[in-house]
Amino acid sequence: MKVNGAHYRTIWVGDDGWSVEIIDQTRLPHEFATLRLTSLEDAATAIRTMAVRGAPLIGATAAYGMCLQARTDSTEKALRHAYDLLLATRPTAVNLRWALDESLAAILTADASHRVATAYAAAAKISDDDIASCEAIGRHGLALIRAAYDQKTNGAAINILTHCNAGWLATVDWGTALAPIYMAHDAGINVHVWVDETRPRNQGASLTAWELGEHGVPHTVIADNTGGHLMQRGEVDLCITGTDRTTAAGDVCNKIGTYLKALAAADNGIPFYVALPHTTIDWSIDNGAEIPIEQRDTREVTRITGRRDDGSVVQVQLTPEGSKAANFAFDVTPARLVTRLVTDRGDCEASKAGLLSLFPERGRMRS
Amino acid sequence: MKVNGAHYRTIWVGDDGWSVEIIDQTRLPHEFATLRLTSLEDAATAIRTMAVRGAPLIGATAAYGMCLQARTDSTEKALRHAYDLLLATRPTAVNLRWALDESLAAILTADASHRVATAYAAAAKISDDDIASCEAIGRHGLALIRAAYDQKTNGAAINILTHCNAGWLATVDWGTALAPIYMAHDAGINVHVWVDETRPRNQGASLTAWELGEHGVPHTVIADNTGGHLMQRGEVDLCITGTDRTTAAGDVCNKIGTYLKALAAADNGIPFYVALPHTTIDWSIDNGAEIPIEQRDTREVTRITGRRDDGSVVQVQLTPEGSKAANFAFDVTPARLVTRLVTDRGDCEASKAGLLSLFPERGRMRS
Repeated sequence: MKVNGAHYRTIWVGDDGWSVEIIDQTRLPHEFATLRLTSLEDAATAIRTMAVRGAPLIGATAAYGMCLQARTDSTEKALRHAYDLLLATRPTAVNLRWALDESLAAILTADASHRVATAYAAAAKISDDDIASCEAIGRHGLALIRAAYDQKTNGAAINILTHCNAGWLATVDWGTALAPIYMAHDAGINVHVWVDETRPRNQGASLTAWELGEHGVPHTVIADNTGGHLMQRGEVDLCITGTDRTTAAGDVCNKIGTYLKALAAADNGIPFYVALPHTTIDWSIDNGAEIPIEQRDTREVTRITGRRDDGSVVQVQLTPEGSKAANFAFDVTPARLVTRLVTDRGDCEASKAGLLSLFPERGRMRS
Repeated sequence: MKVNGAHYRTIWVGDDGWSVEIIDQTRLPHEFATLRLTSLEDAATAIRTMAVRGAPLIGATAAYGMCLQARTDSTEKALRHAYDLLLATRPTAVNLRWALDESLAAILTADASHRVATAYAAAAKISDDDIASCEAIGRHGLALIRAAYDQKTNGAAINILTHCNAGWLATVDWGTALAPIYMAHDAGINVHVWVDETRPRNQGASLTAWELGEHGVPHTVIADNTGGHLMQRGEVDLCITGTDRTTAAGDVCNKIGTYLKALAAADNGIPFYVALPHTTIDWSIDNGAEIPIEQRDTREVTRITGRRDDGSVVQVQLTPEGSKAANFAFDVTPARLVTRLVTDRGDCEASKAGLLSLFPERGRMRS
C-alpha cells in the first residue's frame, strides 16, 4: 500500500540483495521509519518487540530470519536451532509455525551450496503468496460489504467496526480485515470505519488509523469500550476483524477484546466477519480454549507511549505506584458468534463443515 | 476513607465555615491535591472538568454550588439560574437533578435571612445521606460477596471485576460498587479485584486502583478488552459496577463499556451486580434508550495524561494527525443482563417489580 504516495510492502530484501528491511511499527503513527535486519537475532527481536506483528507478517519475518541464519550457517543443526528460536518469539499465531515449516522443509531439500538461495526463494514465495491471499480475501469480503451497502438508502455511509490492526501492516500487503475495506473504498462505496483503539498496545489508534488515513478512508477512533453502544444505536452495519489462529471448528483467537465485540454484534443482530488467509487455520485443534494465550509485559498496560506537543515521543505511567497489572494479548471468540469466515478461497460458515467446504483436501487428509 | 492514614471525604466545608473543598480527581493517581471552591462557577467548573465525578458526588457538589450562590444572591431568580447552570454541567447522571431539586426546594421554603444556612444544611444532609446510603449498599453487597466466597474452596481469593470508579471517590464516602468490597476486605474475606482501566478517562486505572491501594485491597489493573477472556477462563467470580442512572424497569446507564462486560458475564454465567443509592433511580423512564448519553471532548480519546519517570505529569497524543475520534461517556446495560440491583434498601431483581418491592411508595405514587 501507499505511504506518502510511495508503494511499500511491510518487509522486503534490501538493495544489497540479502539484508531484510521492515517498517518499524513501534514508531507509528508518530514517525515512519524502517529497520534493517542482518541476523537471525535481529529477526527474532523484531518479532518479539513487535516491530513487526500480525500473524501473516510474523510468518514472513520468520521465513526471512531463516534466510539470515542460512547465510551464516546452513547446517541442519543450525537451521533447527533458528527454527526453535523463532518459534518461541510469539506463542499464539499459528502462521509462525507454518512459515517456519515451509521454510525449513524447502531449505533442507537443497544441498549446501543452494541452501541460502533456496531460503530466500521460500521467504519470497511466502510473502508473495500472502499478498495473493490477502487480495483474494479482499475480493470475497468486498462482495459482503457491497451486499450490505446495497441495502443502505441514499448512499449513506456503511459503518464498519474493526478491532486491532488486521491491515496491510499486519501482512505483507493489503491486509486481511482491511483488504475488503480498501477495495470497497476504491470501488466508490461510501465506507466509514470505527477503529477500536485496542489497548494496551493501541494497534487500532496507532496503526489502523494511520493506514486508513494514508489511503484516505474515512474513519473514527473510539475507545474499546464504545463499540457495544454504537451497535445499540444502529451505528454499526458490520464488524470485520482478523484472527491470529483459527481452529478447524471455526473458533477464532484474535486480539484481546475481540470476543466482547462479537458478543455485542450477536446481541444486536449485526454481522461479525473474521478475515483470514488459510495459513492461520490450525487444523489440529477444534476447541479454541486449547490455544495458548500469550501474556506480555505488564508495562504495556501500566505505561503508554505518545507524542508531546513539541513532537518528542515519550512513555508515561498511567497507574498508581504499587498497582499490579495483567496483560493477556488474545482471546477466543467461539464460532457461534462468528457470522462468516472470509478466507482466500471464499467465505464460509464458522464451523468444521464450513471450513471443509472450502478446504475439502483437509477432510480427505483426516479420513 | 483513608488517604495516607488520614480520613477524608471527597467534599467538605473548609475551616472558614463556607468555602467548599474537594479532592482534585483529575490529578490522581500521580498527585493528591485538594481544590477550594468559592463560587457557583467554581462548583460548575469542578463538575464539568471532572475534578469531581461519580453520580452521587456530582449531586453533593451541585448542592454545595447552590450554597455558594446563596451567599452572593439568594433571590429565587438567582437560585433558579444557578440550578440551570449546574444542571447543564453533565446530562446523564440523574442525581444531579435530584440534589438540585432537594436543595432548591429547601432553600425556597426559608425566608431571605435563613437561606444561606438552609442551603448549607441541605447540602450537608445530602452528603450525610449519601454516606448512609453507601454504607447500607455495602452491607447488602457484602452479603452477596460472602455467599459467593463461602462457595470457594481452600480460602482461594474471590475475584471481583469492576468497571470505572464507583468507589468512595465517586460518592461522598464509601462508594457504591466498592463499598461491599471494602467491607468484605475488612471482614477478612480474601478478595481480589480486577480493575478495568476504563478508557478514555482511565477512572479505573487512576482512581479505583489508587483507592484500593490506599485501603490495601489486592487488585490488578487490566485493559478494558480483558474482562471477557478472564471470565472465559473462570477467573472472575462476580462483577459489580455502579450506575449513573437506573430506569424504573432496571436498565442501568453507566460508564461506556459496562454493557460489554455485562454481555460477557451473561455468556459465562457470572453474576453481574449493579450497586446504587436510590437517588440514581429515574422513576420517570422505563427504557434506558431514552437516557441522554453525554458526548465529551474527543481529545479525551486522542490524548492521555501520565507521569514521566522524572515525576512530571504530561499529556501525550496517541492517534495520527488527522484521525477523527468519538467519545461517548456512557452506555446502557439492559435489565435482562443485570443479575441483581444492590440498593441502600437491599438487593432486588433488575425489573420494575423488583424495584417496587424495595420502593413500594413509588408504586402507590404511580397508581
